[in-house]
Amino acid sequence: MSSHTEARFAAEVYADRLERAVTQLRAAHLDALLITPGPDLRYLIGSTAETFERLTCLVIPADGAKPSVVIPKLELAHLDNSAALELGLEILDWVDGVDPYQLVRSALHAGSRVAVAETMPALHLLPLAESFTGLPVSATPVLRRLRMYKDEAEVAALRRAGAAIDRVHARMGEFLAAGRTEAEVGRDIAAAIVAEGHTTAAFVIVGSGPHGADPHHGVSDRVLERGDVVVIDIGGPVDTGYNSDSTRTYVLGEPDAEVAAKFAVLEQAQAAAVAAARPGVTAESVDAAARKVLAQAGLGDAFVHRTGHGIGLSVHEDPYIVAGNDLVLEAGMAFSIEPGIYFRGEWGARIEDIVVVTEDGCESVNNRPRGLTVL
Amino acid sequence: MSSHTEARFAAEVYADRLERAVTQLRAAHLDALLITPGPDLRYLIGSTAETFERLTCLVIPADGAKPSVVIPKLELAHLDNSAALELGLEILDWVDGVDPYQLVRSALHAGSRVAVAETMPALHLLPLAESFTGLPVSATPVLRRLRMYKDEAEVAALRRAGAAIDRVHARMGEFLAAGRTEAEVGRDIAAAIVAEGHTTAAFVIVGSGPHGADPHHGVSDRVLERGDVVVIDIGGPVDTGYNSDSTRTYVLGEPDAEVAAKFAVLEQAQAAAVAAARPGVTAESVDAAARKVLAQAGLGDAFVHRTGHGIGLSVHEDPYIVAGNDLVLEAGMAFSIEPGIYFRGEWGARIEDIVVVTEDGCESVNNRPRGLTVL
Repeated sequence: MSSHTEARFAAEVYADRLERAVTQLRAAHLDALLITPGPDLRYLIGSTAETFERLTCLVIPADGAKPSVVIPKLELAHLDNSAALELGLEILDWVDGVDPYQLVRSALHAGSRVAVAETMPALHLLPLAESFTGLPVSATPVLRRLRMYKDEAEVAALRRAGAAIDRVHARMGEFLAAGRTEAEVGRDIAAAIVAEGHTTAAFVIVGSGPHGADPHHGVSDRVLERGDVVVIDIGGPVDTGYNSDSTRTYVLGEPDAEVAAKFAVLEQAQAAAVAAARPGVTAESVDAAARKVLAQAGLGDAFVHRTGHGIGLSVHEDPYIVAGNDLVLEAGMAFSIEPGIYFRGEWGARIEDIVVVTEDGCESVNNRPRGLTVL
Repeated sequence: MSSHTEARFAAEVYADRLERAVTQLRAAHLDALLITPGPDLRYLIGSTAETFERLTCLVIPADGAKPSVVIPKLELAHLDNSAALELGLEILDWVDGVDPYQLVRSALHAGSRVAVAETMPALHLLPLAESFTGLPVSATPVLRRLRMYKDEAEVAALRRAGAAIDRVHARMGEFLAAGRTEAEVGRDIAAAIVAEGHTTAAFVIVGSGPHGADPHHGVSDRVLERGDVVVIDIGGPVDTGYNSDSTRTYVLGEPDAEVAAKFAVLEQAQAAAVAAARPGVTAESVDAAARKVLAQAGLGDAFVHRTGHGIGLSVHEDPYIVAGNDLVLEAGMAFSIEPGIYFRGEWGARIEDIVVVTEDGCESVNNRPRGLTVL
């Protein structure tokens, strides 16, 4: 089992995050945060541990006491690449035979209202819940107030991820061709995602012809045909853990006039949402900007999902760009803008960029041409 | 978001598994199994769904009523590649605004002692637990009695995964060379794992020189040097979802006499454990067989972990080949045999094959030469 090349920020970045987490914990009247491996752990102490079977858990008490890390002795080396030692966290290592859940309990001096990482698996959550009175709550409402605001280093990491996935889209002519299956194309794309600088290909959608009309399609054994419109939605993490996610739509041969006309409206819709994203506006207003352009062209019903999702150490995180979300955008927030149009049984198209809100607008980290690319 | 190329078995295989799951549920005095996406869901209905945010959950009542699948309407297409429709499962689709946890509750006609997949994240477990009286329990004790016994098709899938990772080891001379970093080597290996037939590179350990002494090392920026002993532990899933996992040890240039002598003992230890694996013996006796050879050569303390772990749709699952596990092996059980020797600050070595217990012994799905390969 393993992790990938580690890359983390300076220790003071994590010290500051831990301090802000404690502030939020107190505001929420919680006694502690319990964070198992996953994006929250990486965010808080730079640890890329990916263990599952044996409990590793960061314990952050709200009373201001030093946080602890409960960790199997055999996996102590995982901490070398995190900021845990530099931060002077208390290390509670354990060997087989010891009850690690009791160790977590003992790391808390008082209180039992705990919040857990939402990725914590039942394997650990069930025994932890037994040792606390009352069911834990999710840590996400506490941590979203930290993770939503990307600092300079995080924005740089998102830019690097964006450039890496742009290089894969630039090579699409090598992969997409009539006569190949979506699965064959997908395998080549997955290899290119890694070759262009990601640690893994987290997802590959090759939605050709009628499959493009399913926004959640993966790949299949369908053979690409001349004339197909093909949605390519791809991404993954780079070594800092920050993710790329970008969609472009391709066509095998010249598109017919109707496809071209509808796609032109989609391109306007995506641009309108990007133009709307700036500090001081709500998340839902960005969604509305894309939706309005499509609705005015009679394509409102073809756009069946939200406009976007936040991105960072998770591919999907706050803020969600969706009707009903009145969160006010601020500089440093990063999210996708990805309207799509879907015609069941026929074809679909989507354009997706990751943008970061700046002082007076937003910056796209994806910069490949957004038009229907003819291959 | 996406899944990979789907490959599943015949519907009757899943019908039989669901039936056996109900039998085990009743024996455990439980009212239902709640299974979210992950290896258990793939095992039970062939679904490769990988959703996280929105609840997808297979509900198997112990009272013999038809199982249901609670699933977001937007993700219904995920079921096309599972056996759910062919099996006639009840489909309870939901749209944003509906409480999916209530749907799960309503799918159970009576009772509230439920068991949940151990991979179920807190995101879903916490709201589910709230709608049932009392904390759920883990489904693993119920499902291990099914998943531990591999049928013919599963064994064929493990053989195919084994052959794919053998092809990557066969190419190691292309990747490993003095002057390259572990991370560079690891990136090339990850690409080769995909190129040789895996859907993703699940883990890549390049433990060079002193890093080989850490069994849980990943990769680092250490530059490989002439004379280094290098542990390469790699694997991932093929399209059926079954995993490969194989370790070989390489040396850059001729090894010194002490390394060669100690490695020869490790090779004997691994062979002894393989020879010991057969129906009717305990898991711990296989562990003891490897340990005895190393101990007799004075290397007992250098072998710091268990001999192996079960493998299938999960990389680590039952049966565990470890002291204290008196489970009696039966034909169809599949697990790793991977003794290692570790000398802190100096070097380490490991040999790992996946074996499947046969009627009168075991079959290795990995067949690359096991000796110290000089590159």
